[in-house]
Amino acid sequence: MVTKSETVDTIRRPIRGAQASATTHSELKHVASITRATAPPSAVVYCEGNFAQIDGKTANGLVRHSEAYRILSVIDSTYGGQDSGSVLDDVMNHIPIFGHLDAAVVHESVIPDTLIYGMAPATGRLSPADRGVVLDAIALGMNIVSGLHEYLSDDHEIATAGSERNVTIRDIRKPKPSKDMRLFDGSVSNVKALRIAVLGTDCAIGKRTTATVLARALNAKGIKTVLVCTGQTGLMQGAKYGIAMDAVPPQFCCGELEGAIVAASEVEQPDVILIEGQGALSHPAFCASAFILRGSQPDAVILQYAPKRAHRCDFPNMPMPSPASEIALIESFADTKVICITLNHEGMSEAEITDTIAAQSQQLGVPVTDALARPAAHLLAMVVAAYPSLTQVPSMAAT
Amino acid sequence: MVTKSETVDTIRRPIRGAQASATTHSELKHVASITRATAPPSAVVYCEGNFAQIDGKTANGLVRHSEAYRILSVIDSTYGGQDSGSVLDDVMNHIPIFGHLDAAVVHESVIPDTLIYGMAPATGRLSPADRGVVLDAIALGMNIVSGLHEYLSDDHEIATAGSERNVTIRDIRKPKPSKDMRLFDGSVSNVKALRIAVLGTDCAIGKRTTATVLARALNAKGIKTVLVCTGQTGLMQGAKYGIAMDAVPPQFCCGELEGAIVAASEVEQPDVILIEGQGALSHPAFCASAFILRGSQPDAVILQYAPKRAHRCDFPNMPMPSPASEIALIESFADTKVICITLNHEGMSEAEITDTIAAQSQQLGVPVTDALARPAAHLLAMVVAAYPSLTQVPSMAAT
Repeated sequence: MVTKSETVDTIRRPIRGAQASATTHSELKHVASITRATAPPSAVVYCEGNFAQIDGKTANGLVRHSEAYRILSVIDSTYGGQDSGSVLDDVMNHIPIFGHLDAAVVHESVIPDTLIYGMAPATGRLSPADRGVVLDAIALGMNIVSGLHEYLSDDHEIATAGSERNVTIRDIRKPKPSKDMRLFDGSVSNVKALRIAVLGTDCAIGKRTTATVLARALNAKGIKTVLVCTGQTGLMQGAKYGIAMDAVPPQFCCGELEGAIVAASEVEQPDVILIEGQGALSHPAFCASAFILRGSQPDAVILQYAPKRAHRCDFPNMPMPSPASEIALIESFADTKVICITLNHEGMSEAEITDTIAAQSQQLGVPVTDALARPAAHLLAMVVAAYPSLTQVPSMAAT
Repeated sequence: MVTKSETVDTIRRPIRGAQASATTHSELKHVASITRATAPPSAVVYCEGNFAQIDGKTANGLVRHSEAYRILSVIDSTYGGQDSGSVLDDVMNHIPIFGHLDAAVVHESVIPDTLIYGMAPATGRLSPADRGVVLDAIALGMNIVSGLHEYLSDDHEIATAGSERNVTIRDIRKPKPSKDMRLFDGSVSNVKALRIAVLGTDCAIGKRTTATVLARALNAKGIKTVLVCTGQTGLMQGAKYGIAMDAVPPQFCCGELEGAIVAASEVEQPDVILIEGQGALSHPAFCASAFILRGSQPDAVILQYAPKRAHRCDFPNMPMPSPASEIALIESFADTKVICITLNHEGMSEAEITDTIAAQSQQLGVPVTDALARPAAHLLAMVVAAYPSLTQVPSMAAT
C-alpha cells in the first residue's frame, strides 16, 4: 500500500501556483493578454482517485515542479477541499484539490487554459469516466494535455470536439513521424560532458526526482548540468531535452535518446548530463532502461531503490530485485559502473533510513543516501568523489 | 562487403513460384476468381539495388519461403534477366528478376495482385525513386505491402492514390492501436512448451533462417514446434504467430510478445516454441532482444554468429562482439542458457566452416553447427541433447 507519506516524488521548492490576488475577470483577461507571451499557460490537473498515489505520479510531479504550466489546482474527489501540498508532502503549497472539474473552474476568475490528464495508469488508457471529464473541459474551451499511450488527438470523438471548440489536444507520448526520427550512430561517444544515468529497481520509484535534486545541486555548485528526461512527466514539467522513450519505436529508441543528449551537449555545453531512467533493467515488463544504457552510454549510474517495496509497482506477483543483483545486471549489461545508491524511503521511519544507509553502503561497497530525506549535498559529494575533476570545471572554480 | 554467396538467409525448399503454364488472360481470370479464396495472392517483390544483399533480406527471404504470397518475380535492375534462385543460392527457383516494374508486369498474363516492398533499409524509409515505383504499381491496380517504418498507408500521396484505385496498402510494421495492446502479465511462465529464443550477435545474421530450419526439423521428428516471428520478413512470409517487435511501443513489447506466445501455446499446443530474436542484446542501436528475453522468458537460447563479419551490419564503426561475450551477456541478463551456437558462414570456405565448428565448440564449451551448411539433424541433435525429454513426447514416440 502506498500512502501520501510514502511517495517520494518530492521536490520541495516554490511552485508557480494559484496564489493570484483577487482580481476582476476583465482585469485578469487584460493581464492574460499581456502576459500570455511569456507566462506559462494555466492548468488544472486531473487525477481522480489517484492523487498522491503511484499512478498519480504525473500530478504529484506537477504540483511540486512545473515550468511549462502554471498549476492552478488538482481534481480528485478523494481529497476535495484539501491542499495538494499538505496531502502529498505535509507542506502547504496553496494548490487546492477539487472534487470535480466544475468546482476547479468556478474557483478561477477565468477559464483555465489547460486540463492536464495527470495519471499514468499501467494500461496507458482512458477510462469512460475520464473521457467525460476531457470532453467537458473541451466544451469549456480548455486545451488538453495527455501522457496516455492512447492518443487523444487520434480519438475521433475527442478530436472532433477539440476541433469544434478550436482547442489543442497535446499527446506528450505521441512520437513524431518515424521518418523524422534518427538512428543511433555512436555520436554520443563524442559528447564531452560526464554522462550519468539515474536508473532504478522499479517503475515510479523516484528516478526523476533524484535526478532533479542532483541537477539542482550540481548547478548550484557551478557544475553546469542538464537533465535529459525520458518520460512523460518530465516532459510535461517542461524539460528542454528528452523523449517519451516508452512510446518511441524500438528501432529509434537508442538513436532518439542519443540525439537528445547530443543536442543538449551542443546547445548547453554542460559539464554533466543526467539521463532519467525508465522502469528497471531487470523488469519483466518494462525494460526500456536497456535502450537508455545503450543510447546514452553513461560513464556512471546512480541506482534508486525502495527497501520496503515488496513487489514491482502494479505487479503483485513480481518480487523486487535486490540492489546488489540490479547493480550486477547493469554493470554486466553496459560498460559503466554504479557510483552510488539512492533510497526511496516509502514506508520507512527516520531510524530505518539511517540504518539502511549505513548497512547498505557497507554491504554494497558503494555510498548510499536519500535525495529527499538527507541533504542534497550528500548526493552531490558522492558524485564529486567519483569524479573529482568536476571540481576543476572553470565555472565551479570561479565560485 | 557482402556478396550473393555470403548471404545465409537460405531455406532451400520448393517454393510456390511463377511456373504457371501458358494460359489465356480470360482463363486465368476465371481461375483466379475460383481459387482466390484459397490460393495466396500473387506478388512481385521490389528490391532495386539490394537483392541478395543484407538490406534485401525481405526479398531474399520471400523468394526462398513464402506462405502468405505467391512470389512471381523480383525487381532489381542489377540482376535483370537472371533467375533469383541462381543469383541468391546458385540453385534455380524459376522466379525471374526484372529490371523494372513494367517488365515484371508484362511477363504475367494478369496484373499481379501485390507489390511487396522487399527491402529493410536501416533508415526504414522510402526513397524518392521507390515512391515512384509504388505509385506506378498502385496505378496498375496492385495492392501494396511494406515493412518500412514509414507507414505508406499514412502517406498522403500514396494513401490517396490507393484509395482512388481501390487497392489496399498493408504496412506490416504498423502496430495496432495501443489501446488494443496488452501489457506483460507473467502468463508466459505458465506455457507448457519448451521455449527457445534464437538470438544473434548482429542484425541480418540468419536468426530467422536458423529458427525456420530448426522448426522444420523438429516438426519432421514429430516434436510439434511453432515459430513465433518478431520481424517484418517472417510476418510477410506468413507466420501465424508474431509481432513486428521493432515498431511496437516499448511499453507493450514484452506484453505483445508474451501474448503471441500464449496464443501459439493455447491454439497449437506445441511441444516447442521457437522465438525469433531481433538485432543483438549487445547492439548499441538495436537491442530489442532485451524485450525478447523478458517477454518470452526462454528456457534456452541458440546464438547465431558470423565469424567473418568484421563490424555490425550498416555500422562500419561498430565492431562485432565475440560469441563468448554475447553468451555471457545473455546469461547474465536473463535466467536462461545458451545451448548451442549456429554459424552464419558468409565469406567462409567449407574448410573454414569445419575448422570453426571444431575450434569454437572446444573454446566455448557448447556445441556448434551451421543450420544451412551442415545437416539440420546436427542442430536437432543439439536441442534434443539439451532436452532429452523431447524424445518422450507422445507424437514423437509414435513415429
